[in-house]
Amino acid sequence: MPQPLNGLVILDLTQARGGPFAALSLGELGAKVIKVERPGTGDAGRAVPPFKSGKSALFAAQNHGKASIALDLRSETDRTTFERLLARADVLLENFRPGALERLGYGWEALHAAYPGLIYGALSGFGQTGPEATRPGYSGIAAARAGQMGQGRTGQAEVAGLYLAQGVLAALYDRSTTGRGRRVDVSLLDTEFALLGPAFAAAAAGSKTPEEGAPPPFAPVETLEAADGAFVLAAASDKLFEKLCIALALPLSEDPRFARPEARCANARLLKRLIEAVTLEQTRSHWLQKLTAAGIPAAPIQSLDQAMKDPQLLARTMVVDVLDRNGRKAHLAPGNPIKISGAEDRSARGPAPDLDGNRGEVLRWLDEA
Amino acid sequence: MPQPLNGLVILDLTQARGGPFAALSLGELGAKVIKVERPGTGDAGRAVPPFKSGKSALFAAQNHGKASIALDLRSETDRTTFERLLARADVLLENFRPGALERLGYGWEALHAAYPGLIYGALSGFGQTGPEATRPGYSGIAAARAGQMGQGRTGQAEVAGLYLAQGVLAALYDRSTTGRGRRVDVSLLDTEFALLGPAFAAAAAGSKTPEEGAPPPFAPVETLEAADGAFVLAAASDKLFEKLCIALALPLSEDPRFARPEARCANARLLKRLIEAVTLEQTRSHWLQKLTAAGIPAAPIQSLDQAMKDPQLLARTMVVDVLDRNGRKAHLAPGNPIKISGAEDRSARGPAPDLDGNRGEVLRWLDEA
Repeated sequence: MPQPLNGLVILDLTQARGGPFAALSLGELGAKVIKVERPGTGDAGRAVPPFKSGKSALFAAQNHGKASIALDLRSETDRTTFERLLARADVLLENFRPGALERLGYGWEALHAAYPGLIYGALSGFGQTGPEATRPGYSGIAAARAGQMGQGRTGQAEVAGLYLAQGVLAALYDRSTTGRGRRVDVSLLDTEFALLGPAFAAAAAGSKTPEEGAPPPFAPVETLEAADGAFVLAAASDKLFEKLCIALALPLSEDPRFARPEARCANARLLKRLIEAVTLEQTRSHWLQKLTAAGIPAAPIQSLDQAMKDPQLLARTMVVDVLDRNGRKAHLAPGNPIKISGAEDRSARGPAPDLDGNRGEVLRWLDEA
Repeated sequence: MPQPLNGLVILDLTQARGGPFAALSLGELGAKVIKVERPGTGDAGRAVPPFKSGKSALFAAQNHGKASIALDLRSETDRTTFERLLARADVLLENFRPGALERLGYGWEALHAAYPGLIYGALSGFGQTGPEATRPGYSGIAAARAGQMGQGRTGQAEVAGLYLAQGVLAALYDRSTTGRGRRVDVSLLDTEFALLGPAFAAAAAGSKTPEEGAPPPFAPVETLEAADGAFVLAAASDKLFEKLCIALALPLSEDPRFARPEARCANARLLKRLIEAVTLEQTRSHWLQKLTAAGIPAAPIQSLDQAMKDPQLLARTMVVDVLDRNGRKAHLAPGNPIKISGAEDRSARGPAPDLDGNRGEVLRWLDEA
């Protein structure tokens, strides 16, 4: 029996970690994944240390089995090729800044009109909507904003549930053509292991672990002290690092110790100290304003109570009411982080059931069949 | 336009966190979720503190919008009702110990024969296969075994990718009847927030956060010192706690400070000390053997290098080779944690592509159409 997503074609324009991992997880279930990369450097993940056999160990672990074609979406010839690919694809994945693909003429509205069956999957730092949609994101920044920092390990049991849901959906897709069900078998141990990310890649490449003093996979991605408290900053790409040097008036972007990603990772401790020597001079809000204006991902470290009032999270309906049986607000729950076009993003949910609380209703529904 | 999973019926036999979260995430996309609970106490998640409006805040946040029916799967009448539900369901979810549902006559083979279109989703501590399949699991135990502890925060960017993949699969399911694509919009910020789990529930119920000294949501779930090192133990249910008291010869299971889950959480610090006073007397391997024999989830804290050689993870094909273009082993990658019946669980993967390395092949494939 084939893999459940056999025959499915994914056009993957994403780079770094989250997007390529989404495409990988669909590829692992049988989909054909074609990476569409920018000519020259391609996926930024290709530059993430450590390297083994001349390739990034993390890139190898998260992009195996995919095909790659380099296309310049501003060149007429390459646009023609891209459009021929779109006509054959089931799914387009992208993690550009919201609006970037639209400016190239490939936004959701235009693509949906031209290819009505195409599914468009977008991953971004803050979402396609809300006051901060177009800000650059990074997972450490999102964690600081979301109130995750200082909470220790959270959501691990839930992630195993996400894998289970994904397997079930792949089986449902398969059933739509075969009519046959499948068993999906997911374990806590396997899912914990599958999500080791850069730590796995480092161990697999024979590098030291972070506790043993190994360089981080991205730098600078740091919690930094300002005059009145800490904030989080992520400027891992050459372009962002250059902007950071300008914003801090630190002439390091052509310094050989810091000019390229791998060098910055190898000298991350020194780099953090040089940056902090500047950030300590001014307040946190001074730096957040300045860095944000310069387009550099940065965020305050929020408590969970602060996160629950965060304007971007509220604009994304990420705090929803759970009503009781009388329609009164009784509890809060996180909203649905999967926003799907055409489906209402509700701000309230029905109650969690009492034990056996729907027996009559369920039995009546069975009788209706 | 309706939610993408509208019309889908999920029979949810899971309890605690991971399983109910899987059902919730499908329910949030439009599926009808019917919880089938054990009469009397129901889902163990109902007993997780803190409580608000008389209900567990975590249970409310992870089970809203579901229906509940209590069925005793050993009673003839209830079995008849359960089988009528199976005949109407698209998906069955369960997180019993592997083999438990089979002993009731509802294992995968029997169900697949009777209901060929049913999808069977199983979540467990260690998987349905491998030498330790039938051991009880818990997410903290899995993390310790998988080499996650001491790695700091890992896999957060990847989790956003899982949500994106899930949204894409839901849209594909929807497209199989409508023919129409959808846009799926997922952000790092929203996904970090959605996975706060017990910390969100505590904040939503107005409780202190863990850093402020709030009781844990489950106890005892601890890293404990033995005479020669630390190990992890999880005995959050009354039944497991009773077994633990017997294994440690600690007469606490009828002590009012520890007899019920909420009391154990409120007195977790004291409880940890009383348990550690016993575990410190013997070696780690002594306790792991003894606790495992008693059926209590416990595990050594493994380094990532140890995890990569763990017999259960190897038996589950969770370390796979990434080959180079000449078919030689070049890298390692985590395997696919979604094991699907009928689909081969391969021990090697093709190479990660060179930039633009498949141009000719992709263009030929386009010409074939």
